[in-house]
This record gives sequence, structure tokens and C-alpha cells, in this order.
Amino acid sequence: MPVRVYSGANCLLQHPEVFAAAGKKALIVCGRNSAKRCGVFADIEKILKETGQDFVAFDRVEPNPSIETVYEGAAFARSEGADFIVAAGGGSPMDAAKAIAVLACASIPREALFQGNYVKALPMIHIPTTAGTGSELTPYAILTDDRIETKMTMSGPVMFPKAAFLDGKYMAQLPYRTTVHTAVDALSHAAEGMLSNKSSRFSDALAKQSLQMITAQFPALEIGRFDAAARQSLLEASALAGMVISQTGTTVVHTMGYSFTYFLGTDHGRANGLTLGQFLALGEAQCPARIREILSCLGMTKAAELTVFLRKLLQPDERLSEAQVRKFTEITMKRGAKKLSDCMIRVSETDIMNLYAGYRQEGVK
Amino acid sequence: MPVRVYSGANCLLQHPEVFAAAGKKALIVCGRNSAKRCGVFADIEKILKETGQDFVAFDRVEPNPSIETVYEGAAFARSEGADFIVAAGGGSPMDAAKAIAVLACASIPREALFQGNYVKALPMIHIPTTAGTGSELTPYAILTDDRIETKMTMSGPVMFPKAAFLDGKYMAQLPYRTTVHTAVDALSHAAEGMLSNKSSRFSDALAKQSLQMITAQFPALEIGRFDAAARQSLLEASALAGMVISQTGTTVVHTMGYSFTYFLGTDHGRANGLTLGQFLALGEAQCPARIREILSCLGMTKAAELTVFLRKLLQPDERLSEAQVRKFTEITMKRGAKKLSDCMIRVSETDIMNLYAGYRQEGVK
Repeated sequence: MPVRVYSGANCLLQHPEVFAAAGKKALIVCGRNSAKRCGVFADIEKILKETGQDFVAFDRVEPNPSIETVYEGAAFARSEGADFIVAAGGGSPMDAAKAIAVLACASIPREALFQGNYVKALPMIHIPTTAGTGSELTPYAILTDDRIETKMTMSGPVMFPKAAFLDGKYMAQLPYRTTVHTAVDALSHAAEGMLSNKSSRFSDALAKQSLQMITAQFPALEIGRFDAAARQSLLEASALAGMVISQTGTTVVHTMGYSFTYFLGTDHGRANGLTLGQFLALGEAQCPARIREILSCLGMTKAAELTVFLRKLLQPDERLSEAQVRKFTEITMKRGAKKLSDCMIRVSETDIMNLYAGYRQEGVK
Repeated sequence: MPVRVYSGANCLLQHPEVFAAAGKKALIVCGRNSAKRCGVFADIEKILKETGQDFVAFDRVEPNPSIETVYEGAAFARSEGADFIVAAGGGSPMDAAKAIAVLACASIPREALFQGNYVKALPMIHIPTTAGTGSELTPYAILTDDRIETKMTMSGPVMFPKAAFLDGKYMAQLPYRTTVHTAVDALSHAAEGMLSNKSSRFSDALAKQSLQMITAQFPALEIGRFDAAARQSLLEASALAGMVISQTGTTVVHTMGYSFTYFLGTDHGRANGLTLGQFLALGEAQCPARIREILSCLGMTKAAELTVFLRKLLQPDERLSEAQVRKFTEITMKRGAKKLSDCMIRVSETDIMNLYAGYRQEGVK
């Protein structure tokens, strides 16, 4: 895990040298508003003025960024002569930034975009402003691919940021729903990471710590009040979970979630939370000790407790038609083959259909 | 933590590409016998023949390596034109290898050896054959400095190995005492790391996992029987603890231990174990919650339990004269100033003297 992590209040402003060492001209990658609203954009500008570095902003990254956006961003980076990237925001800008960093260094045709073997990327500094994705500590960029109606992943060692700054102050005004959905995303990363066949003592250590830290914030998540310490703790838990999935990847819970997001617009973290509890329940027969290990970090003994908790927290109102259940299952089986085989829980097509069917409601076509 | 970690049975032979990518000619750094006896030397030779890479061995690293040895090794590396290093053995060869890697790239006078700011080092691949030092995952090289009668530390980001291979099979024949002493070293790293003011949620996650894994081997350590799983687990616990001290450093327990080693020849890990329990006991009044957190990973509630356990395990027979207690205390105060100030437990000169005096025995001058 080659990312240098800085953590704590005002850590960004305390380390202009990290920016100074990164390059001559920065491309700031962010969404339309949030980076400006939460104050991180102003802090980045302040530092880059202090270090005397040139910069330009690409502030057009949409939620669940498209392939078109990252090609646009890369063309912009080249035309502006940017030689490093500062990414600020949630998972979407951070993921887009990684793809832009790769595409700015090499002409990769769209057909080959997800084939890996990326040779080079612009150096990146990531500053998360939500606590869920952990993208600041992963080599992944998840992009929406309209041609196949789901999300796909770019991944490669060159896609790790050089540095990540974790300061909860940028989340002080984060809306309640976003806070909950992103926390569930982090929880999902840590739990899914523990269910991967690629998990190790190293990834487990980080996953357990992450789960325990998120669990300590369950009361805050339920009542919706977050002090600075709670924000910082959720942010660090999310970063820990990012380190986990850097080593293990995610599971089919994520692949299933992509269809909720693509077709229903469900927030990413929420989409994972919709099936996570029932997914763990499937594991109770197959790998009971492992499931108990995960649940004990959550202060629970049965997977059903997690399902109840997540339903209370997320209040799912997603509605799927029978046709959607079939379609989502088909996409998941096709795109999630690797994740299915990497997971300790063996999941059949029928299992996936049943997981989705939990969200089918009467009268929906 | 930029080291790529490979773990498990035969992981070395499965990854010749790591060697192939490291350079043209390897300098194998090891001790006189152990690397050959445990089989790792033959495995390294096999791989380098397979990849067609040239190599030469520097097999003269003594326990607690001297400054002279690393200068010799560096001169040898240069005269042989080695462009990467394979280090195999316990902490001594691995630490020596890091110093050699730096000195092979730059002429550093002895007076400036511990001043840091090392610009470059030969790329390194580390293969531990004991489970204690964690050196394969740290940027530290601890060398014995006869001029000041203690050990000193070289440290710098360029001193991280590129890769580490963790295979417990090389420890199958490790003598009982060495196994115990090195396990206590790892335990000490994890516990001391949690007492550093530089500790974080990240280092804590690794430290707790490490402590729990070592604790699971307490029965094996007491009876002296280790199966392959126990060996591998101790090795991974040691690596985790190495990651911890990469972030936090160690505490004054280590500085105190250096005098036991320098003047009495006490094994390094054992030397830490001699005072660790009483050191934690000092913290029970100052930072009780933190000490409880550490002890709970060990399945204990009082620091005194750790002292009893370590005494049973180590059966200390070190004898110090009053003059030695004074001298060791003086050296510790002088060389350990930074460690004293970085620690959550505030320790006075009198405390250190009392810790040492626990080992003073009647009639010894």
C-alpha cells in the first residue's frame, strides 16, 4: 500500500511540501459543487498559491462518472499541460481522477480501457470529502459503462495516489443521507474484504478495526448527529476499509449493487447495504466461523440482526419488477464471475435472484 | 508501507519474476550458517539460476551487526558490481543488508552514518527466517556502535525493501530459545507501537491483530511445539508488528534492551521482554485505558500478569552490578531521549534505574 496517509484536523494546510514535490502544474479534479461548498477547494487553492504552483480545475465529474467524462478530463489535462492531479470529493471525483491520470499519459482506446496493464499515471494527491469509498487508498477507478449497462473497474498499481489527506472537517456539513450511505459503503468494504479468498491476516487486521470503528458510530448514524471526532473516525474507518479492498477486492454484493445504481439511481453505498445482511446470512451455513468473526466486530451474533439494522437505517423503498430481477441477475452473473469465484460464500444464480427478489414489490412491472 | 508482501508455503519459488525485475546481479546478504541450514539459500540460488541472474554472497553478517561489517559488505557489493540485494536470515542480516544497500550507493563517512537523508539504496528483497524483528517491513537498520557502547539506528524511506517473502518453512528447525526470544520481540514491537504518540488507528489495527496472533501461540511457546501453521502465524504476526513500528518506532524498552545485549550478550528480543511487563505496569496509572487495550489483546487484565508470563517464558538469569545499573541508565537517558518523549508513558531516570535494578542481584559487582 504505497499511499502516504496524512490524517487529522488541518493536515492538508500543514503539508504544502507534498504538493510542492508532486509537479509543476496541478489539475484539480472535483465535482460541480461539493468540493467548493465543503471548503477543500479553497484550501487547495491556498496551498498551491503558497507553493507558487500553477493549477487548473476540471470540476465536471458527475456522480458515478462516465467513460466520456474521464476521456474529456484527460484531454483537458494534456491541453493544459498539467503534470499532477489533486482529486477532492467523494468516490466519483477520486475514481475519475485515477482514470484521467492514466489516460493523460497514454492513448488507450475505449475498447481496451478496462484491460489493465497501465504503464504510467500522473502523480495524484487525494482528499476525500465523504467517508465511504476509501478510493484515496485503492488502485481502482469504477466507471459507468452505458454500453453494457453497469459499472466497470480500471485497476493497476500505477493508479494508487501518492498521498491521501484525511480531514473530517470537510464533512462537517455532509447531508445525513450521504453520511449514512457512505458509512454503509465502508462497512460493506470491510465485511466483503473479510469474505474474499484473497483476505489475509494483514487485510483482516484492517477490516476488523474498520468494522469496530464504524460500529462505535452506529448510535450517531441512527440519530444523525456527528461531532468532529465521529466524522474523523468514520473517515479513518473508510480509509482502513479502502486498504482492505486494495488487497482483497469486493464481492458480488458490489456487483449486485451496480444494477441498483445504474437502473434505479440508488446511491452506491446504499446499494451495497440493500443486500449485505442477507448475503452474510447465506454464509452462516457455509463459513459460520468467519461470519461470526465479522458479526462480532459489529456487536452482533446473527446476520439477521445486520439486515434489521440496515433496513432501519436505510429504509429501503427500491422497487423492482420481475423483469428487473431477471435482468439484474443476468448482468450480475455475467460481470461478477470473478468476484463470485473469489468469495468464501458460494453463491448461485438462484441465490442472486432471491437476493434481488427481496426488493421486488407487488404490482411493479 | 511500500513493501510488496508475499506470504505462504513456497511463496518464494512461486515468484521468480520479483527477482528477475530487481536487477542484473544479486548480492545475497546472510549470516554464516543459518540461511544455508534452513534451506532459504538453496531456494534463492535455484531462483537466480532459473532467471539467469548472476549472484554473489556476502555471508559474514554476525548477530547484532557492527558498523565495520556493513562498510565491508558495501565495498564488496561495489567491487562485484551487484545492483540488487537479497537478504535472508533474522534481523541481523536484514538490517545489515539495508545499511549495505545505502552504502553501496553513496560514500558516507562513519561520523555521518546515522544522520539520515539517505538519497538512494540498492533495491532489496528480504526473506526473514526468524519471526520477531519484522525488519523485512521496516526502513530501519540497527547497528552496533562500539564507540558509544550501544546500538544505533539508520532509517530512511529508501531503506524499505521492495518485496518481502514470508514462508514459515524456513523456521521449521529454528531452536526453541530463538523462537521464544524472537516472538517476544514481535510482541514487544506491537505493544510498544501502541504506546507511541505516533500511533494511529492504522497502526493500532495492525498491532492488535499481531498481539492476538502471538497470544494464540502462547501455549505453543510454553511447551515448545510448533506446527507449520504456528510458524506461519508467528511470522505474519512479526511482519504486522514490523509494519507497526515502521509508523510508530519503538519505545525506551528497546533502548534499555540494547545495553543488555551490548554488555551481557542477551538476545535482542529477550532483552525487550526483560522489562516490558514492568514498563506496562508504569503505564497503568498514567494511561490505564490504553494499557487495558493492550492487555486485553493478550487475554490479560493486569500488567503484572505479563511480567509473570514473560518471566516464566524467559527465565531471566541476567545479573547486573550496581555500577551496571547506573551505566545502563545513563546510556539509556542519553540515547533514548527521543523515544522517551514519543511515548505515552512518561518515564523518569529513576523509573529506568528501577527497571534495570529489578535485574540486579546480590553479590554482583
